[in-house]
Amino acid sequence: MTVAPARLRIVVLGGGTGTFTVLTGLKYHELDISAVVSTSDDGGSTGILRSELGVLPPGDIRQCLVALSDGDEILRRMFNYRFSEGSLSGHNFGNLFLTVLEKVCKHPLEAVRQAHNILRERGQVIPVSEQATQLFARLVTGEVINGEHAIDETTVKRAPIDRCFIDPEIEANPDAIDAIRKADAIVMGPGDLFTSLIPVILVGGIVDAICESRATRILVTNLVTKHGQTDGFKASDFCRVVEEYIGPAKLDRIIVNTSEPPPEVLKAYEEAEDQLVVDDLGHDTRRIFRAPLISDRMSKKVAGDKLKRSVLRHDPAKLATAILESISPDRTTDALGRNA
Amino acid sequence: MTVAPARLRIVVLGGGTGTFTVLTGLKYHELDISAVVSTSDDGGSTGILRSELGVLPPGDIRQCLVALSDGDEILRRMFNYRFSEGSLSGHNFGNLFLTVLEKVCKHPLEAVRQAHNILRERGQVIPVSEQATQLFARLVTGEVINGEHAIDETTVKRAPIDRCFIDPEIEANPDAIDAIRKADAIVMGPGDLFTSLIPVILVGGIVDAICESRATRILVTNLVTKHGQTDGFKASDFCRVVEEYIGPAKLDRIIVNTSEPPPEVLKAYEEAEDQLVVDDLGHDTRRIFRAPLISDRMSKKVAGDKLKRSVLRHDPAKLATAILESISPDRTTDALGRNA
Repeated sequence: MTVAPARLRIVVLGGGTGTFTVLTGLKYHELDISAVVSTSDDGGSTGILRSELGVLPPGDIRQCLVALSDGDEILRRMFNYRFSEGSLSGHNFGNLFLTVLEKVCKHPLEAVRQAHNILRERGQVIPVSEQATQLFARLVTGEVINGEHAIDETTVKRAPIDRCFIDPEIEANPDAIDAIRKADAIVMGPGDLFTSLIPVILVGGIVDAICESRATRILVTNLVTKHGQTDGFKASDFCRVVEEYIGPAKLDRIIVNTSEPPPEVLKAYEEAEDQLVVDDLGHDTRRIFRAPLISDRMSKKVAGDKLKRSVLRHDPAKLATAILESISPDRTTDALGRNA
Repeated sequence: MTVAPARLRIVVLGGGTGTFTVLTGLKYHELDISAVVSTSDDGGSTGILRSELGVLPPGDIRQCLVALSDGDEILRRMFNYRFSEGSLSGHNFGNLFLTVLEKVCKHPLEAVRQAHNILRERGQVIPVSEQATQLFARLVTGEVINGEHAIDETTVKRAPIDRCFIDPEIEANPDAIDAIRKADAIVMGPGDLFTSLIPVILVGGIVDAICESRATRILVTNLVTKHGQTDGFKASDFCRVVEEYIGPAKLDRIIVNTSEPPPEVLKAYEEAEDQLVVDDLGHDTRRIFRAPLISDRMSKKVAGDKLKRSVLRHDPAKLATAILESISPDRTTDALGRNA
């Protein structure tokens, strides 16, 4: 009798577009994938459903479910549908679906489990907690910004973030702890550092699980800075902040993009006061993994979408390959051979 | 090689609660069931979705889909879920589902077909037309009431309805025509006469199909009159009105309830100015089929439901049995032997 080799267990922490990209790329590989997803989103459709109906914020969970879905293409398109007219304008159908599923199932985690059957998931989407919470950001000036959405979407110039915290302090879903403890690799980023990744890490029990896990801890640095969150950040700043939050654990791998975006895209970012993230990580070939990772397809704004979306994205397939190569036991070079 | 006997083809015309009851009862029999459903609903959640998003009115289609669904119990409960709090209050999730499905599929009939797969239907739900229309009622005073919802829900005393019509005059969906032409039995009622059944019959091509079909034409008379629609109606009035609209076709069978409702229920109806429908159909044993048909389970108002619902209902199983016995070739008695 032969035993099939155990699949590599990869846990992705976050929520939002960056996590969607990672999951979309990873799902085509033979892996045991889990996404541990933030429950602190309070913006847009999610914010309304959460405050009016008391459900677990559905937005990030929905994005991860769609990313890992192997189900009916029509159902996936429905989950991504956003109303652009009438009194429902701005609501995302997937969010409504998860809201009603929670109402029918009576329990948020049971609702997410049921959604796995309906969407035929190729992995596990695990809310980081069965409770919602609120994210706060204390700026270096002492000012406190209340709510993930307010932190995420700023139009005015703002002092740098000193520290994020959550209130109420919620405890992690045991399934999330379990997935992290058993993981072979933990992937953090890309995505909004303070409003997607950090809210997961802040949940009670998650840092301990990250520290206790024997997993390779991977950070994918962002392509561009985000106004109001990571202004002026270089690659080393992303690493430093993440290590502040996951301490005493350290990052084992840092994945950095090497390709140059088209000049017209760069210009658009500069007008929005965002810049390409400068790679200042030096020559630690054991930790740093460099590869060209920018997607050739520029993302477009979705009709009815109230959020400003960036157009520069990681390519899901290239990113997944980079993640897997970075943890390959026989790795001596990166995808381009630059660290050889 | 043996050939399985062809299943009896039954077409139910209408929409709304009465049609739901008929379909719920029939689906447990080995039949080829179709529901040809009104597209003139303009009330509540359906009215908002129709006017704001330009979709085919989903409410009646949704009810019929749920009635004939053999799918996942959770999905069926979701389809019946009505928001009772917040800005979505009054919206039914099944209506939202069908709306988004139509937006994703781009065509209303394709959306309904896709819904069949998702809900695993035990029959066909066929919108009477691929277009929506508006129902009008001309009263005997000459006054015209505009819209199904306005006709359906009246609080003031109103003159009797002289004639209903639709505008725009829409053409029937060829699948609806085909189902009626090939049917062995056509079931009309129970349900709101002028706002569920007549709007189907008024669609271009439906009367011709009913007249050309070799089907047994069955009317199930209502248990109670409805204030503003059928005040003072006896069983013969229901038959007369239906034959006015389907003429020159005639009704072949009329199914009438014989059981008495509990006195406290009668009292509640009388306070709402509705009465039990009096059976004045005489002794035509070939046409009239009598049986005790009232459900022991009294329906309750659903939270968030803006419509007034009647509590006296036909029992789905008893009604289905009555319908099938009424068209049985060896019928000499009704279920109680009263016409023997």
